[in-house]
Amino acid sequence: MTEHDFYLDRRALVTGGLGFIGSNLAVRLARLGAQVTVVDSCVPGCGASDSNLEGVHHLVRVIRANIADTAEFERELAQADIVFNLAGEISHSRSMEDPLRDLELNTVAQLKFLSAACALRRGVRVVYAGTRQVYGPAAELPVGEDVLINPTDFNGVHKRAAELYHQMLTRMGKLDGVVLRLTNVYGPRLGLHAHGQGFLSVFLRRLLDGDGIEIFGDGAQLRDPIYSEDVVEAFLLAGMARELPHRIFNVGGPETLSVAAIAGIMRDEIAPETAVRCRPFPPDHLAFDIGSYSSDTSRIRRDLGWQPRTGFRAGIRETVRWFAGVSTSR
Amino acid sequence: MTEHDFYLDRRALVTGGLGFIGSNLAVRLARLGAQVTVVDSCVPGCGASDSNLEGVHHLVRVIRANIADTAEFERELAQADIVFNLAGEISHSRSMEDPLRDLELNTVAQLKFLSAACALRRGVRVVYAGTRQVYGPAAELPVGEDVLINPTDFNGVHKRAAELYHQMLTRMGKLDGVVLRLTNVYGPRLGLHAHGQGFLSVFLRRLLDGDGIEIFGDGAQLRDPIYSEDVVEAFLLAGMARELPHRIFNVGGPETLSVAAIAGIMRDEIAPETAVRCRPFPPDHLAFDIGSYSSDTSRIRRDLGWQPRTGFRAGIRETVRWFAGVSTSR
Repeated sequence: MTEHDFYLDRRALVTGGLGFIGSNLAVRLARLGAQVTVVDSCVPGCGASDSNLEGVHHLVRVIRANIADTAEFERELAQADIVFNLAGEISHSRSMEDPLRDLELNTVAQLKFLSAACALRRGVRVVYAGTRQVYGPAAELPVGEDVLINPTDFNGVHKRAAELYHQMLTRMGKLDGVVLRLTNVYGPRLGLHAHGQGFLSVFLRRLLDGDGIEIFGDGAQLRDPIYSEDVVEAFLLAGMARELPHRIFNVGGPETLSVAAIAGIMRDEIAPETAVRCRPFPPDHLAFDIGSYSSDTSRIRRDLGWQPRTGFRAGIRETVRWFAGVSTSR
Repeated sequence: MTEHDFYLDRRALVTGGLGFIGSNLAVRLARLGAQVTVVDSCVPGCGASDSNLEGVHHLVRVIRANIADTAEFERELAQADIVFNLAGEISHSRSMEDPLRDLELNTVAQLKFLSAACALRRGVRVVYAGTRQVYGPAAELPVGEDVLINPTDFNGVHKRAAELYHQMLTRMGKLDGVVLRLTNVYGPRLGLHAHGQGFLSVFLRRLLDGDGIEIFGDGAQLRDPIYSEDVVEAFLLAGMARELPHRIFNVGGPETLSVAAIAGIMRDEIAPETAVRCRPFPPDHLAFDIGSYSSDTSRIRRDLGWQPRTGFRAGIRETVRWFAGVSTSR
């Protein structure tokens, strides 16, 4: 079955659907003909923006509510054919500054939301946006899904608890959950002005402003950045999958690059005249830094037939084109 | 160094110190000459009782406070040489009935408590009472510490999050944490009238009352019950340990027995005239049942030199003697 056949007229609830990845997914779903409801409370600093749904506003119903306040979208949840669960805070640094806020947004709210989902729409497929941050420092690369979980920050702990909710409720037959552990994502609608959205956001904002960029450390750390459309594809496939021998999947990019190489490509594509400098890790960042990371994506390739299609340089070009279009149209 | 030399005059803070295991530990610490402060809010249903400290009331300072309300014991926390962190809810069934309550007691409260500990007494040794429930159904027996974490109930998820707090804050140098994953514990001061304290509590209460007992399922499930004094010993050793190549340890009993064998021994020792019957699992219990379980305790034996000393029959005899003494003395 094609994505179009599957999602046409399907009622999809997207939590966090005004945020970076959530809005890319909502836009794609709307274009596939799904009946999309977005639930987003626009928590300051989490990257949500109404403008992220530009072009599909007429196709998407937006409910401004915290996912914990389930009375605000009870009917939509009860009628959902599928839930894409992307609401949450992703900032590692902010979770260290205010752990209770992170606990509230990533664990307490998920518990309330999932409890309502079990009650109102028992057995519904829920695809949850997890994070590779749950792994902590890698013992070896690439990192598979079954290694020890050892997060270095509160965000990792709280997102891990939310993963476990999905797993447990799925085993009990109350939900039909799938967890995608996302690596560093970039692309159209990346939040450039929100706090703590990761180094790709910082690099992109500075380069688009014509400023130079700074790498923490020596730049040798490895990452496997992934283009947002490839992540959207993983969500769509996870939503469609019938047989699920596994419930947790890594979603990582097609290339493993050093941070210096990532910075170099971005600089070359966006603002070749600017400088890339290295500076020592700020101590508060070093404390939760995970060192080098790359995802072993063999499980999702095998089980869901997914593969990332966009190389890093091509993805950065697309991203820059998108941001240029946005700034022209406003 | 002997336990006596180590703990003499040492300031020990015991959270949950009016509960079953916490009070056994507090009593032992007091008898070793430690300066013991107990923090316990006596959450209804968690098994706390003033009478658990009978005989050492003059040696133990008791602060009635939730561990989340750190202002209530700020000075004691700031001056603690060591923290034994046993406060929490242990009932699996209750966590399924009221997950938010369990989250509050086992995760939110721990986050507030540990944040205060980091601020007031950076680097303090904290020995946390974890649970084997975090493992979920065992792929093979005995279960080692590094298997996949897959809890079957909210209690397991929330206790796992608290474990991860200890791990993460230890890695950051803010705490010096050790997690003990306890299996089914029995012994003096076991809460007989609290809800959901496990089948050993139910069996013991009924047999002491001269009632017969019921086994869920066919009784073939394996467990490795452990006597409370052996658990206390594990806490004391974890508090004393200097070198800690690992931070998580299983604490399980010396024998792996079927539930039917456990029931038979208890019946024979306590009320030989009563009947042991099997009945099907109630569906709400079956949903979070983990099947057979036994702990691989080789890590704590090797790293801390611990070993369980009390066989199940001997431990039950001691337990019965203790409860007989209590009922005589009142």
